[in-house]
Amino acid sequence: MPEPLFDRVALIGIGLIGSSIAHAVRRGGLARHIAVQTRREETLAEAHGLGLGDSYTTDPAEAVAGADLVILCVPVGACEGIAQAIAPALKPGAVVSDVGSVKTSVVRQMQPHLPESVHFVPGHPVAGTEHSGPAAGFAELFDNRWCILTPPAGTDPDAVGRLSAFWTACGANVEIMAPEHHDMVLAITSHVPHLIAYNIVGTAAHLEEVTSSEVMKFSAGGFRDFTRIAASDPTMWRDVFLHNKEAVLEMLGRFTEDLTALQRAIRFGDGDTLFDLFTKTRAIRRGIIEAGQETAAPDFGRSPHARAQEPGE
Amino acid sequence: MPEPLFDRVALIGIGLIGSSIAHAVRRGGLARHIAVQTRREETLAEAHGLGLGDSYTTDPAEAVAGADLVILCVPVGACEGIAQAIAPALKPGAVVSDVGSVKTSVVRQMQPHLPESVHFVPGHPVAGTEHSGPAAGFAELFDNRWCILTPPAGTDPDAVGRLSAFWTACGANVEIMAPEHHDMVLAITSHVPHLIAYNIVGTAAHLEEVTSSEVMKFSAGGFRDFTRIAASDPTMWRDVFLHNKEAVLEMLGRFTEDLTALQRAIRFGDGDTLFDLFTKTRAIRRGIIEAGQETAAPDFGRSPHARAQEPGE
Ligand SMILES: NC(=O)c1ccc[n+]([C@@H]2O[C@H](COP(=O)([O-])OP(=O)(O)OC[C@H]3O[C@@H](n4cnc5c(N)ncnc54)[C@H](OP(=O)(O)O)[C@@H]3O)[C@@H](O)[C@H]2O)c1
Ligand SMILES: NC(=O)c1ccc[n+]([C@@H]2O[C@H](COP(=O)([O-])OP(=O)(O)OC[C@H]3O[C@@H](n4cnc5c(N)ncnc54)[C@H](OP(=O)(O)O)[C@@H]3O)[C@@H](O)[C@H]2O)c1
Repeated sequence: MPEPLFDRVALIGIGLIGSSIAHAVRRGGLARHIAVQTRREETLAEAHGLGLGDSYTTDPAEAVAGADLVILCVPVGACEGIAQAIAPALKPGAVVSDVGSVKTSVVRQMQPHLPESVHFVPGHPVAGTEHSGPAAGFAELFDNRWCILTPPAGTDPDAVGRLSAFWTACGANVEIMAPEHHDMVLAITSHVPHLIAYNIVGTAAHLEEVTSSEVMKFSAGGFRDFTRIAASDPTMWRDVFLHNKEAVLEMLGRFTEDLTALQRAIRFGDGDTLFDLFTKTRAIRRGIIEAGQETAAPDFGRSPHARAQEPGE
Repeated sequence: MPEPLFDRVALIGIGLIGSSIAHAVRRGGLARHIAVQTRREETLAEAHGLGLGDSYTTDPAEAVAGADLVILCVPVGACEGIAQAIAPALKPGAVVSDVGSVKTSVVRQMQPHLPESVHFVPGHPVAGTEHSGPAAGFAELFDNRWCILTPPAGTDPDAVGRLSAFWTACGANVEIMAPEHHDMVLAITSHVPHLIAYNIVGTAAHLEEVTSSEVMKFSAGGFRDFTRIAASDPTMWRDVFLHNKEAVLEMLGRFTEDLTALQRAIRFGDGDTLFDLFTKTRAIRRGIIEAGQETAAPDFGRSPHARAQEPGE
């Protein structure tokens, strides 16, 4: 067994992402001690029952005391309060990070409260499922996914290097970029897709002409894939939209413009415009498969046959 | 082995849906002879190589001669030409059906050309994948999915009953409704979802701020699920939008209205509106899982862990 990367890791919040980190740390022997913190006693008891950590507390300051790596795994809107709560207890030299789906806002919320003596390196593992809570996590969640780090200018490169090594050991690839760029990239690859998925599921639920029972029965035509996305945690996603407002509104504007053009093509029976777009979008899909972020196995059918073609099964 | 339901089944078109029917007919022993027709020699050779039928031809009239059940498995826009081509060759008493994703237009295209002596019962199996062609099919595609039949008023109930029995034997549940209602239901559960998936993939491909390589790398945040939908066959989907124009434009109008309200909630920081919608959409997801049209296993992670939880694996 090689030396662990960190002596003591504190996980502030132990839902899907926090518990997946706990599993990945155990799998890789990446720390000697995992300190688990969560707000509510019930969640703490659940995490304890699952054996996710070595110590358990509802007090964030207690959890971070003596930790070499602190990772906030809470909804984006909760970061400022936690930064204030942990600041006095942080160990000098500690790396302080997070996993929030928005980065500019997290920097704005946390940086003013953190002492000079710690290294602040915000992060975002681009991996998830629609489930939440401590029981939802698994060690493989980050395997072959990307983790984006957005260290502020002037951050100690050694601290960035140690956090990169940590995520690599958790199975992820690491990319470094500016927080503003992160927020733009994620607005189009994650936030707007979630918004339109939530939206169409909402639209479908409120029709008079089509009953909910019909929507559910005939969902295999495409709709059910949207419902999976629209089953994601409401608190997390409310916070994402409130905290990445500018980039989301910008990307949503582009989406709507393009949709208006498609709508017009349908209205005027312009099949060539439709056919051209529908052909180009396939290239993006192939790129994603080649980038190792997806498999080519068909999944609409959710068939045993389709599953059997999946690599690694 | 029970008596086959039909003596001779003719499949006009042998892509994903046609070949899946061929497999399901073989699996269930549902016919004595499968006549395969497709437009191009290459596709015919591929179908032949896969052993999908008992006879092969590029001539639709030749394929339907003597058939008790004829199913058109071609893009919706091709139905009229085929109805004209097969009409003189149809066997009196035959059941003539199709699998098109739009029904009003198919009725309008086919009915005027078909002789009085046959039973016209349009159909639509609500099941598919994003792949196409004769090699994409598999017998399980229709298992536990719904097949909608839209017989015109006055259709012989016995013919409807025989086609229902056929689809049930292919693994599907059968529902009967009016073609106009079908087109409205599918507009919201399938056509508009596909349109917005195609649209967002198109939007993402044309940004200056975010490169295509970034879109592909960080697609695990939700986007890649849209690319799967947007990888569906361009010809099929062009025809769907051209032939279900009214219902698609109507449902798209509702979608856009609701999206505008969400956009405003984000702009004004109205977290409660977001949270409320994001909570309600979960109920629809639960309904779909309870209706047996989806499993609860998380799938964003595409992890072996998630897969292992899936029933039947
Ligand atoms: N889910 C994804 O797909 C995904 C992917 C990448 C990144 N992320 C990011 O990861 C973070 C956590 O997401 P998750 O999916 O792990 O969430 P989760 O499963 O819902 O867990 C949330 C955790 O945060 C705690 N928490 C919630 N509200 C809080 C508050 N106001 N103050 C303090 N603690 C609070 C919860 O504590 P109690 O249960 O004790 O209340 C729980 O420990 C979010 O910032 C999200 O943007 C999520
Ligand atoms: N894919 C789905 O998810 C799905 C689900 C339910 C219903 N459907 C419906 O099923 C039908 C077939 O879809 P599919 O996915 O099976 O398509 P596919 O895999 O692309 O196969 C299309 C078949 O139609 C033939 N064809 C194409 N254009 C034609 C034309 N203009 N004239 C005559 N034949 C033509 C092709 O022949 P050649 O290869 O010889 O040119 C091929 O045999 C469509 O109406 C679609 O709406 C599809």
